[in-house]
Amino acid sequence: MGHGTNRVEDMTSPNTATARETIVEIHSVCLPPKKTTFQKLKKRFADVFFPDDPLERFRNQTWRNKVILGLQSLFPIFTWGSQYDLKLFRSDVISGLTIASLAIPQGISYAKLANLPPIVGLYSSFVPPLIYSVLGSSKHLAVGPVSIASLVMGSMLSESVSPTQDPVLYLKLAFTSTFFAGLFQASLGLLRLGFLIDFLSKPTLVGFTAGAAVIVSLQQLKGLLGIVHFTGKMQFIPVMSSVFNHRSEWSWETIVMGVGFLIILLTTRHISMRKPKLFWISAASPLASVVISTLLVFLIRNKTHAISFIGHLPKGLNPPSSNMLYFSGTHLALAIKTGIITGVLSLTEGIAVGRTFASLKNYQVNGNKEMMAIGFMNMVGSCTSCYVTTGSFSRSAVNYNAGAKTAASNIVLASTVLVTLLFLMPLFYYTPNLILAAIILTAVIGLIDYQAAYKLYKVDKFDFFTCMCAFFGVLLVSVPLGLAIAVVVSVIKILLHVTRPNTLEFGNIQGTQIYQNLKRYREASRIHGFLILAVESPIYFANSTYLQERILRWTREEETRIKENNGSTLKCIVLDMTAVSSIDTSGIEALFELRRRLEKQSLQLVLVNAVGSVMEKLHKSKIIESLGLSGLYLTVGEAVADLSSTWKAHGQPRI
Amino acid sequence: MGHGTNRVEDMTSPNTATARETIVEIHSVCLPPKKTTFQKLKKRFADVFFPDDPLERFRNQTWRNKVILGLQSLFPIFTWGSQYDLKLFRSDVISGLTIASLAIPQGISYAKLANLPPIVGLYSSFVPPLIYSVLGSSKHLAVGPVSIASLVMGSMLSESVSPTQDPVLYLKLAFTSTFFAGLFQASLGLLRLGFLIDFLSKPTLVGFTAGAAVIVSLQQLKGLLGIVHFTGKMQFIPVMSSVFNHRSEWSWETIVMGVGFLIILLTTRHISMRKPKLFWISAASPLASVVISTLLVFLIRNKTHAISFIGHLPKGLNPPSSNMLYFSGTHLALAIKTGIITGVLSLTEGIAVGRTFASLKNYQVNGNKEMMAIGFMNMVGSCTSCYVTTGSFSRSAVNYNAGAKTAASNIVLASTVLVTLLFLMPLFYYTPNLILAAIILTAVIGLIDYQAAYKLYKVDKFDFFTCMCAFFGVLLVSVPLGLAIAVVVSVIKILLHVTRPNTLEFGNIQGTQIYQNLKRYREASRIHGFLILAVESPIYFANSTYLQERILRWTREEETRIKENNGSTLKCIVLDMTAVSSIDTSGIEALFELRRRLEKQSLQLVLVNAVGSVMEKLHKSKIIESLGLSGLYLTVGEAVADLSSTWKAHGQPRI
Repeated sequence: MGHGTNRVEDMTSPNTATARETIVEIHSVCLPPKKTTFQKLKKRFADVFFPDDPLERFRNQTWRNKVILGLQSLFPIFTWGSQYDLKLFRSDVISGLTIASLAIPQGISYAKLANLPPIVGLYSSFVPPLIYSVLGSSKHLAVGPVSIASLVMGSMLSESVSPTQDPVLYLKLAFTSTFFAGLFQASLGLLRLGFLIDFLSKPTLVGFTAGAAVIVSLQQLKGLLGIVHFTGKMQFIPVMSSVFNHRSEWSWETIVMGVGFLIILLTTRHISMRKPKLFWISAASPLASVVISTLLVFLIRNKTHAISFIGHLPKGLNPPSSNMLYFSGTHLALAIKTGIITGVLSLTEGIAVGRTFASLKNYQVNGNKEMMAIGFMNMVGSCTSCYVTTGSFSRSAVNYNAGAKTAASNIVLASTVLVTLLFLMPLFYYTPNLILAAIILTAVIGLIDYQAAYKLYKVDKFDFFTCMCAFFGVLLVSVPLGLAIAVVVSVIKILLHVTRPNTLEFGNIQGTQIYQNLKRYREASRIHGFLILAVESPIYFANSTYLQERILRWTREEETRIKENNGSTLKCIVLDMTAVSSIDTSGIEALFELRRRLEKQSLQLVLVNAVGSVMEKLHKSKIIESLGLSGLYLTVGEAVADLSSTWKAHGQPRI
Repeated sequence: MGHGTNRVEDMTSPNTATARETIVEIHSVCLPPKKTTFQKLKKRFADVFFPDDPLERFRNQTWRNKVILGLQSLFPIFTWGSQYDLKLFRSDVISGLTIASLAIPQGISYAKLANLPPIVGLYSSFVPPLIYSVLGSSKHLAVGPVSIASLVMGSMLSESVSPTQDPVLYLKLAFTSTFFAGLFQASLGLLRLGFLIDFLSKPTLVGFTAGAAVIVSLQQLKGLLGIVHFTGKMQFIPVMSSVFNHRSEWSWETIVMGVGFLIILLTTRHISMRKPKLFWISAASPLASVVISTLLVFLIRNKTHAISFIGHLPKGLNPPSSNMLYFSGTHLALAIKTGIITGVLSLTEGIAVGRTFASLKNYQVNGNKEMMAIGFMNMVGSCTSCYVTTGSFSRSAVNYNAGAKTAASNIVLASTVLVTLLFLMPLFYYTPNLILAAIILTAVIGLIDYQAAYKLYKVDKFDFFTCMCAFFGVLLVSVPLGLAIAVVVSVIKILLHVTRPNTLEFGNIQGTQIYQNLKRYREASRIHGFLILAVESPIYFANSTYLQERILRWTREEETRIKENNGSTLKCIVLDMTAVSSIDTSGIEALFELRRRLEKQSLQLVLVNAVGSVMEKLHKSKIIESLGLSGLYLTVGEAVADLSSTWKAHGQPRI
């Protein structure tokens, strides 16, 4: 790169005299408007907890309107209920019945996944949808038990308490965990800490869900192969060894029937995925399979006993279970831990599903309010024999495709489950366990999103790494630990970015006032006497030492380069602070130290375009005064122009 | 703020025709030069682990030079040893003797602080300085036991093992902790993970040190009041209640003598602080006090037994202690934990002290190499009856003021301790414990840096909060927990900044191409049809949802504002990405979603000046193609000029 002797001239050459004067006109860097600490705290507090400005709608309203708006915001049913008509009702009935046909077999299946009695799955498909329809702000969320939360609850609780040997304690723990899940969810919403679930990033969730889906699928081998003595563990290796060590228990009748229905279910799912209009095929097939397989087992009931079936299920509505909550004793910690983890996971799923469909129909789902709705739903659920529920992705998709218009479809769903609980329970007597396994398998296979993982691999290797950590963590270590590993890896990524920020050398793009990265813009070139560096991160205790050393190294390298090219001496380090969005006291001290050390080498340090909060701290710490008048500029261009002209005026060698 | 109808004209008005053409000339945004994943990983790896480019000096050297440079870099003694002369030696002898006079009484005192036999403090002032003089790269560091690490070791170990009831096990654990401290320190250096100690930010250290100093001071009440039965706890409340519950044990002779010497020591310290030239007064006063008080106790030994004294100390050099290291058993976890915490703390102190004096004399101290030196010193120390040592701030300051020129002053120090160990031990028989308490008190009172805390309060409230967390955490909870709380608070600050980043509305400063924060620069004004927003943080999973919602809220608010002012319609959202130093897949998805939702409102989304790595990911994820040609600009000015002219060309209402 050739370096002309009058770079500064070059720089301004395309704009003639008038333009150059404009350049040397220097704009002072303003301090932000003065605010008291209280005002700043208030703003910061509002930013963190009320980014959506929830009171905006209430401003300039009469008292009556305020009350109505308040009621509507607490109970969204008031918002849509007043405009509800027959047409909306027709849509909701159709979609409600469709999701019910899916929810009943899935409810039974997922309860088994959580090692709970199948009837609890139906109970959980009755009360929670009713509550959600009153409190929830999503129009398409179909509420009920979901696979991931069921799996996690099952795996965490059964590590300490055996669901077969101590079923009552197990049930108690399940309801207690549900209560704590709800409490945790509602608190997150109430304290407006909903942003905490953002820390479960998409890559984490893709990996975690896929890992959990694999685990769930492997667990289904028990039902699909007819194995009686199966391991209670969840990890890949013990499950696989359990499958092959019990080969004598494999039952060919179960395998034939199970695989047959599995193929049917997968095929109907495939058809519906290809043609969303045919959503009803995959929506109806689980119930149809249940009916057909139950009939089949009923018909051959005297010929073979190889196929295990559900057996007796109690008739009647949800019994109250508040007396089963468990607030003391050795397992309380386990219940709380399980509650928090299933709570976070089900919340994440519910919010994500709600947001997805809201975005498709262009309406807003308020995260914090949804959390309160889901949390309250689970707290009530825990007192009415329900376990953790949330919005399920598969059923919500069916709901959406079936044309649901309001949360009333959840009422239709609940009513259908009500009828089932009251009258149809005996029909499930001969329902074979293998069909439940097939239904679960079909549902969870769709959760293995290898395309998303491939996209992560292509776009962002680190995100892919996080995803793999979650996947293998869940598969090989344990479900909660896998999740924890992935969250820690995501946080480390943020910290690493802050600890080792980029510093870039800028140059001027000839004929403009634009200064850009020298490595990226070939047309950019260095300016004699200046080293222009941009720091791409806040300056914090975690990186202040690094940045100080790195900038000194840039200076050394630049001086070596100049010496090799026989250029003129370096005089000034310009630090572009545009991307330094924040600074703390360690950062300020590093700047002080940097200035001191550069001064010893007769180099000037100039700061450019410090943002408001940084500027304020620089001012308070008196560093600005110590930099002097020519230590602070609004743009790199102004700094370069002004300093060059000063040097010229002082009769230094022309640059 | 009045809004003219031809804002765009206004904007360019000071520069006449030629200038405007320059503006409408659009510079394309470049992708960074292509690199393979391996190259990127390599660069990232080098940035994280080798920011100082340690092999730089070895390039273009002959083999012989490379070997010499290698030896010098492993053993800094080769660097200064070859140029060592009599003049340097004279300076080092003076400073070495001065710090020895301080190190001997402090060594004995600090060992008592760690609940160890006083002689271990002298052992620890002999071997470690010798090793450091060979390996260390600081010229002024005076090595030996320090108060904070002694306190932490004492408090952590005595929680599980009583030093009076089981002294051998206690001693074993102390040596084992020292070994692990050294191992941990050396590993940090070897694995180049030194940056981890940066997470102990200055505010954390100010608060932690002050809290620890208060605890240490309170502990000295035992010696100063002559209490025999003192609590083993460290927290403020139990210590104070112990002091007042044992009022019957207070001994007036001890109190009078102790307070007398304390006043002398504090006065001499004060004089030396006022006049650094008189450093020798405070350096000599501890030894003088020890001598005088020992004499006093010797003289009154038959008259009173109220004053307790050290008693018999073994003569002779450090006995080997490698057989006392303890690598199995119930207390191993405690030893490792204590080792890591004391290791981190002593490392932080050593590195900080080294850097401070290096910066005063303008030489470099290599962090990772220092860690290896300190770590190796402690590992050897643990095998020669030493406990954790590092560079002490107070003694290094004396060393510096006494004119130390090289690490040879540590050799002089060690030789003096050698003579003491071999011949002078019986002289300490009558040294009263109260004088040790007074020496410790004088040393630690200086650690309470209330001025630094006040400065934190003035400049950065959050840093002050971190500092207070550390202070009260140490004082009221426990030493390691207080430290952990403060580190977590510091990390949360970083995460909070990332989770809730600033978004700013920009406007044009009339007559320039500068776009700046509207709230801060009064002369900046909005441009019709545009909403220009700057995002001040990387876009990550932790903030992508927030940013998306926040930008949509900005849009809503801007539209309301326009409606109120009867302005022309909003057409375009310009997102200035200059400060977005990084993006991940969640961030990209948020941008996609944002664009989709803005499009539904017939608003265009334009990205400006995406930095290299962001640009690359935008490119890979195809978002750039979906934004179209006019979706990406290098500067806000170019975006505004180009889009306005396009709109005009398409015959839309003139803006």
